[in-house]
Amino acid sequence: MPATLPVTGAWRPGDPPGRRRFARLATDRPFVLEGGGQLGDITIAYETWGELAADGDNAILVCHALTGDTHAAGGVSAGHAAPGWWDGLIGPGHAIDTDRWFVVCANVLGGCQGSTGPASPRGSGPLAGHPYGSAFPVVSIRDMVRTQTAVARDLGVARWLSVIGGSMGGMQVLEWGVMFPERVRSLVSIATAAAASAQQIAFGSAGRKAIRLDPRWRGGDYYDAGPGDGPTEGLSIARSIAQITYRSDDVFTDRFGREVVEPLDGFSLWQRFQVERYLEYHGTKLARRFDANSYLHLTKAMDLHDLARGRGGIEEALDRISAPTLVVGISSDTLYPTYQQRLVCEVLAQRGIPCDYVEIDSRHGHDAFIIDLDQLGPPLAQFLSDVDKAGPGHG
Amino acid sequence: MPATLPVTGAWRPGDPPGRRRFARLATDRPFVLEGGGQLGDITIAYETWGELAADGDNAILVCHALTGDTHAAGGVSAGHAAPGWWDGLIGPGHAIDTDRWFVVCANVLGGCQGSTGPASPRGSGPLAGHPYGSAFPVVSIRDMVRTQTAVARDLGVARWLSVIGGSMGGMQVLEWGVMFPERVRSLVSIATAAAASAQQIAFGSAGRKAIRLDPRWRGGDYYDAGPGDGPTEGLSIARSIAQITYRSDDVFTDRFGREVVEPLDGFSLWQRFQVERYLEYHGTKLARRFDANSYLHLTKAMDLHDLARGRGGIEEALDRISAPTLVVGISSDTLYPTYQQRLVCEVLAQRGIPCDYVEIDSRHGHDAFIIDLDQLGPPLAQFLSDVDKAGPGHG
Repeated sequence: MPATLPVTGAWRPGDPPGRRRFARLATDRPFVLEGGGQLGDITIAYETWGELAADGDNAILVCHALTGDTHAAGGVSAGHAAPGWWDGLIGPGHAIDTDRWFVVCANVLGGCQGSTGPASPRGSGPLAGHPYGSAFPVVSIRDMVRTQTAVARDLGVARWLSVIGGSMGGMQVLEWGVMFPERVRSLVSIATAAAASAQQIAFGSAGRKAIRLDPRWRGGDYYDAGPGDGPTEGLSIARSIAQITYRSDDVFTDRFGREVVEPLDGFSLWQRFQVERYLEYHGTKLARRFDANSYLHLTKAMDLHDLARGRGGIEEALDRISAPTLVVGISSDTLYPTYQQRLVCEVLAQRGIPCDYVEIDSRHGHDAFIIDLDQLGPPLAQFLSDVDKAGPGHG
Repeated sequence: MPATLPVTGAWRPGDPPGRRRFARLATDRPFVLEGGGQLGDITIAYETWGELAADGDNAILVCHALTGDTHAAGGVSAGHAAPGWWDGLIGPGHAIDTDRWFVVCANVLGGCQGSTGPASPRGSGPLAGHPYGSAFPVVSIRDMVRTQTAVARDLGVARWLSVIGGSMGGMQVLEWGVMFPERVRSLVSIATAAAASAQQIAFGSAGRKAIRLDPRWRGGDYYDAGPGDGPTEGLSIARSIAQITYRSDDVFTDRFGREVVEPLDGFSLWQRFQVERYLEYHGTKLARRFDANSYLHLTKAMDLHDLARGRGGIEEALDRISAPTLVVGISSDTLYPTYQQRLVCEVLAQRGIPCDYVEIDSRHGHDAFIIDLDQLGPPLAQFLSDVDKAGPGHG
């Protein structure tokens, strides 16, 4: 790990805001979280593209995945270290057409790119101004969705034309449909699950334990440490584990095979194959723009994701959805297998909710939802146009 | 992690030998390893079952996988902390029938259950008697096989009736066939690869990094630490990552689903699902009987496994095999997918070497080779009987 890596890659107040706008909630009384914790003075960062129609009926909410943020579209600029994670999908004339629709993407609660998370300064109390660190409470996907309603309120969006997202973003999509059926005209759920599976939990847990094992994690209170002294190695290992599961055996073989970094004329224990360098590179890259505590909290929220909780079952939960739904699966996704996508669609169809299932035929694995935009774009564009044409009364 | 966990689970001289016997090599001059390192005074521990025929022609070598050891069959006893890892397959009347055949299983070089490995005392030099620790050289699958010839020498086995193994054991099987074609009458290669894939390397690498991150690993020189002060947390994480890949999504869902250990009436970051407790249990269990440095070295040897290295290619390497071969794949194995098994069989068949491919139809994933013995046993028994009947001249 380069010694120059920051202790956290979190955006913090005082950093360039870039295109971020901010919604605030829980300024008068604490926001009680699903898991029992409380937060006061919550900020939710978001970006928008396009123009909101006078009747407020053309707004689309895009929900990001684990390491995503508000910057779903657009280039690198001050305040935005990486290009938009769905840049090819969102824009004028793109599938999510910003000439027609007003597009919003909010950083999730517990995240680290402008919304309140573990790296954020506490708003009140004796430690006001100090990062939450180990004191940050566990948040859930439902908490993320509830705090996103503050963005809708600030923008004047009574009902989303669509809520769209993949992976952790898809979890939010499904919760939007279940929690606020009257506030969504359609849903697009991509490569996600109605409830995290045991295998998904197991991979998430292994990553969290690697972060916890890093002595520089310091029980979660590492923000006062100097550059290079943060839990970047633990975060990098967690990222590596995840990234293996986001791609596929085929793609790793094609791209890296058994190519080595250091030549094999003698063997040593830490000699690397190219695939190891690739994973290290991405681990370091994530450490520059992410926060280890956010990684812990967001993966925990994903593991806790279960539409059934407190609702009598998965089918009973999905029964609350009334919006036409597009479900997208990926043929080579071993982390969120297609049976999880088909389950959602089958239950909705049984209940008379229009549901289309589209499968991306890809070798890229789970990450295909941010790679194979040529396959994702057309059915998505068609679905959104159909919803738009049906009008707000028929959503 | 319980504070009572030993710093290493390695068997050490002075511990009860149990059924172990020992072969020695490199007592007069150093053994030069494939990767350039050297070792002097190597011990290879092994166990045997059944009786060696007067002509020495009924001996079968069983090769163990990553965390296996000499104890392929038999119960728990002093010196053997776990029951035989293939106990249902090896014994009187079993597929590997000890009434007919003389069965041998050796602990691999670099291992920790009696053979020379990182936890072993150095035989000579100023640090004689001290564990190798960080000074242990990288060993390869080929080195393991070469040292196993000392066992054959001591026992008087000129030619194995068969060499059999799964996973890392299968890598040794293939190397036996390539390195010593005149010393094997048949091969049984199960759930393994002709060369480790990029994905296999990536998972192995993530586990090693978790061990390295453990401050109690101490750069590999942790053997003087007290009980509870060894790198058991890092080893446990590495084991968890591996174990997820050894099983399957289906089996985890059936067995654990979303059952919790601590109730979900409030959320906390380290609250566990049952699948997490299961993985912790197995991590702790491994720490009691394994050595973290051995884990590093054996997974590195697996990543380095490549029949092609120095031989002009995979096909050219397999071309050296002359023994009839049984290749076994597992339908649900995502770590060593069946295409890797079929590749071996196809190349051998193209070259006129009799090769049977059998697929275990199982939901258990990679570990099916130690679970679904009812499916593995019959084709294995048939294959061994056929080889035996063909006689030594026709192997």
